[in-house]
Amino acid sequence: MTTTKSRTMQTAVLGVSGYAGAELARLLLHHPRLQGRAPIFFGRENASGESIALTDLHPQLADNNGSASLRVEAFRWAALREREIDVVFLATPHEQSRAWVPDLLTHGARVIDLSGAWRLQHPENRAVYKFEDADATIAATTQQQAVYGMPELHRAAIKDAKIVANPGCYSTAAILGLAPLVRSGWADLNRGIICDAKSGVSGAGKAPTAKTHFMYAADNLSAYSIFGHRHTGEILEQLHLAPQQMTFTPHLLPIPRGILATIYVTLREPMQASAIAECYRSFYKDSPLVRFHGERLPQIQHVVRTNYCDIGFALAGDGRRLIVVACLDNLLKGAAGQAVQNMNLLFGWPEQEGLL
Amino acid sequence: MTTTKSRTMQTAVLGVSGYAGAELARLLLHHPRLQGRAPIFFGRENASGESIALTDLHPQLADNNGSASLRVEAFRWAALREREIDVVFLATPHEQSRAWVPDLLTHGARVIDLSGAWRLQHPENRAVYKFEDADATIAATTQQQAVYGMPELHRAAIKDAKIVANPGCYSTAAILGLAPLVRSGWADLNRGIICDAKSGVSGAGKAPTAKTHFMYAADNLSAYSIFGHRHTGEILEQLHLAPQQMTFTPHLLPIPRGILATIYVTLREPMQASAIAECYRSFYKDSPLVRFHGERLPQIQHVVRTNYCDIGFALAGDGRRLIVVACLDNLLKGAAGQAVQNMNLLFGWPEQEGLL
Amino acid sequence: MTTTKSRTMQTAVLGVSGYAGAELARLLLHHPRLQGRAPIFFGRENASGESIALTDLHPQLADNNGSASLRVEAFRWAALREREIDVVFLATPHEQSRAWVPDLLTHGARVIDLSGAWRLQHPENRAVYKFEDADATIAATTQQQAVYGMPELHRAAIKDAKIVANPGCYSTAAILGLAPLVRSGWADLNRGIICDAKSGVSGAGKAPTAKTHFMYAADNLSAYSIFGHRHTGEILEQLHLAPQQMTFTPHLLPIPRGILATIYVTLREPMQASAIAECYRSFYKDSPLVRFHGERLPQIQHVVRTNYCDIGFALAGDGRRLIVVACLDNLLKGAAGQAVQNMNLLFGWPEQEGLL
Amino acid sequence: MTTTKSRTMQTAVLGVSGYAGAELARLLLHHPRLQGRAPIFFGRENASGESIALTDLHPQLADNNGSASLRVEAFRWAALREREIDVVFLATPHEQSRAWVPDLLTHGARVIDLSGAWRLQHPENRAVYKFEDADATIAATTQQQAVYGMPELHRAAIKDAKIVANPGCYSTAAILGLAPLVRSGWADLNRGIICDAKSGVSGAGKAPTAKTHFMYAADNLSAYSIFGHRHTGEILEQLHLAPQQMTFTPHLLPIPRGILATIYVTLREPMQASAIAECYRSFYKDSPLVRFHGERLPQIQHVVRTNYCDIGFALAGDGRRLIVVACLDNLLKGAAGQAVQNMNLLFGWPEQEGLL
Repeated sequence: MTTTKSRTMQTAVLGVSGYAGAELARLLLHHPRLQGRAPIFFGRENASGESIALTDLHPQLADNNGSASLRVEAFRWAALREREIDVVFLATPHEQSRAWVPDLLTHGARVIDLSGAWRLQHPENRAVYKFEDADATIAATTQQQAVYGMPELHRAAIKDAKIVANPGCYSTAAILGLAPLVRSGWADLNRGIICDAKSGVSGAGKAPTAKTHFMYAADNLSAYSIFGHRHTGEILEQLHLAPQQMTFTPHLLPIPRGILATIYVTLREPMQASAIAECYRSFYKDSPLVRFHGERLPQIQHVVRTNYCDIGFALAGDGRRLIVVACLDNLLKGAAGQAVQNMNLLFGWPEQEGLL
Repeated sequence: MTTTKSRTMQTAVLGVSGYAGAELARLLLHHPRLQGRAPIFFGRENASGESIALTDLHPQLADNNGSASLRVEAFRWAALREREIDVVFLATPHEQSRAWVPDLLTHGARVIDLSGAWRLQHPENRAVYKFEDADATIAATTQQQAVYGMPELHRAAIKDAKIVANPGCYSTAAILGLAPLVRSGWADLNRGIICDAKSGVSGAGKAPTAKTHFMYAADNLSAYSIFGHRHTGEILEQLHLAPQQMTFTPHLLPIPRGILATIYVTLREPMQASAIAECYRSFYKDSPLVRFHGERLPQIQHVVRTNYCDIGFALAGDGRRLIVVACLDNLLKGAAGQAVQNMNLLFGWPEQEGLL
Repeated sequence: MTTTKSRTMQTAVLGVSGYAGAELARLLLHHPRLQGRAPIFFGRENASGESIALTDLHPQLADNNGSASLRVEAFRWAALREREIDVVFLATPHEQSRAWVPDLLTHGARVIDLSGAWRLQHPENRAVYKFEDADATIAATTQQQAVYGMPELHRAAIKDAKIVANPGCYSTAAILGLAPLVRSGWADLNRGIICDAKSGVSGAGKAPTAKTHFMYAADNLSAYSIFGHRHTGEILEQLHLAPQQMTFTPHLLPIPRGILATIYVTLREPMQASAIAECYRSFYKDSPLVRFHGERLPQIQHVVRTNYCDIGFALAGDGRRLIVVACLDNLLKGAAGQAVQNMNLLFGWPEQEGLL
Repeated sequence: MTTTKSRTMQTAVLGVSGYAGAELARLLLHHPRLQGRAPIFFGRENASGESIALTDLHPQLADNNGSASLRVEAFRWAALREREIDVVFLATPHEQSRAWVPDLLTHGARVIDLSGAWRLQHPENRAVYKFEDADATIAATTQQQAVYGMPELHRAAIKDAKIVANPGCYSTAAILGLAPLVRSGWADLNRGIICDAKSGVSGAGKAPTAKTHFMYAADNLSAYSIFGHRHTGEILEQLHLAPQQMTFTPHLLPIPRGILATIYVTLREPMQASAIAECYRSFYKDSPLVRFHGERLPQIQHVVRTNYCDIGFALAGDGRRLIVVACLDNLLKGAAGQAVQNMNLLFGWPEQEGLL
């Protein structure tokens, strides 16, 4: 597989039927570097084995610009192998990504996996997924090749990666909100960091369940998966924290999309707000998809349907109690947008290409 | 079975697990005439055959007033037969109500059925339900005994009924909004009546489906079942209209509960607003659960969580184009509240007892 | 003022502070033909006479792509006159547009007015706005020059227009939903057309009022301005209807944006659905921003944040009762998107440029 | 003024026009001990000095049970003085309550003040309100008489109080969620307690503002008043905490009503969940309006439109990181419901009378 600029890259999306899949399809179809070569879409909706129209699956993708001809094929390995594909996006269930990625790599495709299958290097963190690897050796080798796909932290490694493990939505907000501070060494980790996070309902997936029923989610707020959410391990690994140093609490918001994380940190020594601001500004100066607002707090409506992570903070009068607020669109910077950002890095394009 | 006033009536609810069932439980538990004798609750949640706590099914019913001891039993005919029950409420699927009511009658209980099983006298209207009666003769006899449970139209008949067929939620709004006018003979039926109705999501039931998913219903509005909604037949029968005289269009609103029907009628002759107002006021003067607002239009938030149907109207300057707006809470006046209103009539209590 | 293609056009927006203004700013900033020459933004927020940052007014417009340098100036005629401006968009109050447009024309700018100031040719329809023209002769002359800016109906006239009166949001849905049918002559106008329309809260404007308070709009639905909404006149004029032939009823939906109009028409003779479909398909075959879905009904969530008007229909079994459903985003196809569509026509660009 | 049980108490409400006022009116009108003697309602809506119908102000209070005759008078001292009033509820702005309460006391009425005027004993906590007392001595004396109206903490003192300072909505959730634990001495206060709280829009009041506009609040979440919310002082005083020991962060939820507080505490020593549960159960065993759910987390939809505060908790595997979740309806247990609970105590009635 080559990535010269002389031809248009061929992308493929496996699992296009969910919310992140729909956003991914939209971003790839409008990506300036991919014009003239539509992604190959694979899905599982078409039980009979026949392809269906992408716009039947996602009517919001219909436009009068050729969208009517886009098809979603039933996935078959043969259909993958017979095409030259430069990058495969997996928006599949965790278990499926875990099972398929090793084979995809042998076919030569670079992989950006939106599931949680390959994000965690430490087995104890991965345990929450209960993966049963058919071949433990292959899984371990594959795992070592996986790069955590957060460009703001691992830009260089992503460029050369065979497998990009695209971060979780909550993890993206928490890690981007904390990374500058934790790296600075100013946080008193022994006092514990608290991340009180709130997410819109799209984060719970497209399957109709009791908790995604309108009557459950509307006019309500509830905490869930306290002390046990799957994204916790990503935050610990990326920030090099011990489990007792991070308390992560997700809540289900009565809105379609958006995450806001309110993060509480105690500083070792009293500090000035200006120093905090400088720390974040410097850390993200080359990151076009993070907007740092200083002491102005961000809110969900300004990031929804954008690929940005917005960050702001407030420092108590005592100079030690710091609150960082980070927010993003869980389907974009928290999923499909970050995946495209990673694709841009893989192909040597500007990180924000097709994302503004 | 006797219904003397010297003892507290025993009620039973079959199918307490849905939204209407929950409201029914709440109303019966707080009904002043039923204090000291809780309803018997039957449901199907407890697959193992054991009873479960009512407050596990509906946590909002928990109070510190004895609710913790309320149980929902798995339904068995024996459990029904061995109790003296004065009235059975059915909040069961249409098919189940259709199958069970004849047997319930033979056990001597009076029945208030919240499903659509017995509302329609004309087979052609009932066809939309596709009922398959085990015994057509029994079904026909039972059907003849069923009284359409709209107190404002059939108060006297309900008092003596063995089976009360509690009206549909949309039908209640449409019929109450139209009855005075249609009966007056002022409406030009040949020009057709249009009922553009909008309902909250609880009307679609508790089962998680693609259309009750928060992501589908929120920030959206959609029309559905145009020219084919099951409640149309009730409106036709109760108002003695021919099919082509009534166009009924339901829409799904992004709110938990409430129905608003905007009804368009052409009058035969130009009229004064005062005559219209007098017609409605007179028609509902003895109906405590209908509030007529004259030319002030009602809105959903004033009827939600009440047992009222609110009605208002506007008349065009030409004196012939009339718009009637009727609204109610689909789970109360459109279901459980009307069922309790019917129970009050059955037992000779004031119609609005326990409903204000 | 010239509009040759050899240089980038200069646009200006007066009244950028509202919802439509924000959408207009976004569309113009991303328009492929306007790259390198940002619009000049005028507003009234900056009371002190100093300019403010566009992103302070509309934080959602901030991106890391130069948006930080965009300013909103306090409007002064001098500031307008000293620039070469090819087209001025007015997103100002009706009265202001009425007062300013004659002067703007004398300065040589072409004008696209998003207000209701110049949409109505018949004084009796315009009466609802209570305009007090300083010079009746100038106003009358100006009015005659105004072209109703609905490209699907007046494409040719718009290309040469000095003043484009951009249609109202409700009117756009109603007119696009009805035009093919009314023009066909199949509608029985004597039976009256009913347009039951529902709009999200952004249609009520940015000013905080009792009716735009979250507590009023949320979990609610209400009809308003029955028999008197300002958009009615546009529908009458564009479709050549007499007042008693059209009943238009708006409702306030508990959603941020989106309009759905359910339109009821009686046909003169029984017809086949296929003929209806062909009529619409043919009418809109060259209109890239109308999507006709045949007998599949459109819904709000598929048009929100797009520039499309989606149309579908259902025909009763009697072949005479026809329901047309039209929906669109009130801020885009119902305001700013249609304004840009009109600009594209003015400058000879493809109608949908910058709108897909 | 006497409060013997032989006659029905006379209540009065000043400031009935807001959301809490409406709930208070509803609760008092339905209170079993107040039947036959409606509250006297004073408001400021009727600028002309004439009374208006209560149901014009709050249409949701209309029922067919005498509500039509209820009036809201313009407040005048004379109107107050000429009646025998047993208790006056103030649902007035903070400044008005601060100014009026001393005079009300001299008229002999007992006062339950829903504002923040008299809740705070320490001047430094009260400073945030910027009160300007006309007579500092009278204000100080009055302040000393004020009892903080949280029955679960000050039941005995409330019974004899002349002035009950009804707690803030956020404060109620935070204090009830923390009191058992803080009193137990198990919390490591030096590590700081964090209360991340979220409230529905009714908490922001009825005045239409940019932040209560539907377009701002819907589909959004934002933090506000970080390190400076007025309710913080109440939490500090009631729990005897130093300012740096408590971080309180409110957020605006896109729902009409309800508060959920997620509270983070570090325990001095590792503990068992059973001990935590026992601590709460024991503390609230005589508090009928607090429901403790143990390790089952409460959620907003189960407390909305009830007078309960629901509390649950989760303890990390390390036995030291404790999360307490408390939720309530901000207009009921957080305002009007708690005010009625206080009235019940004043008059020696069961605490929950009229509140279940």
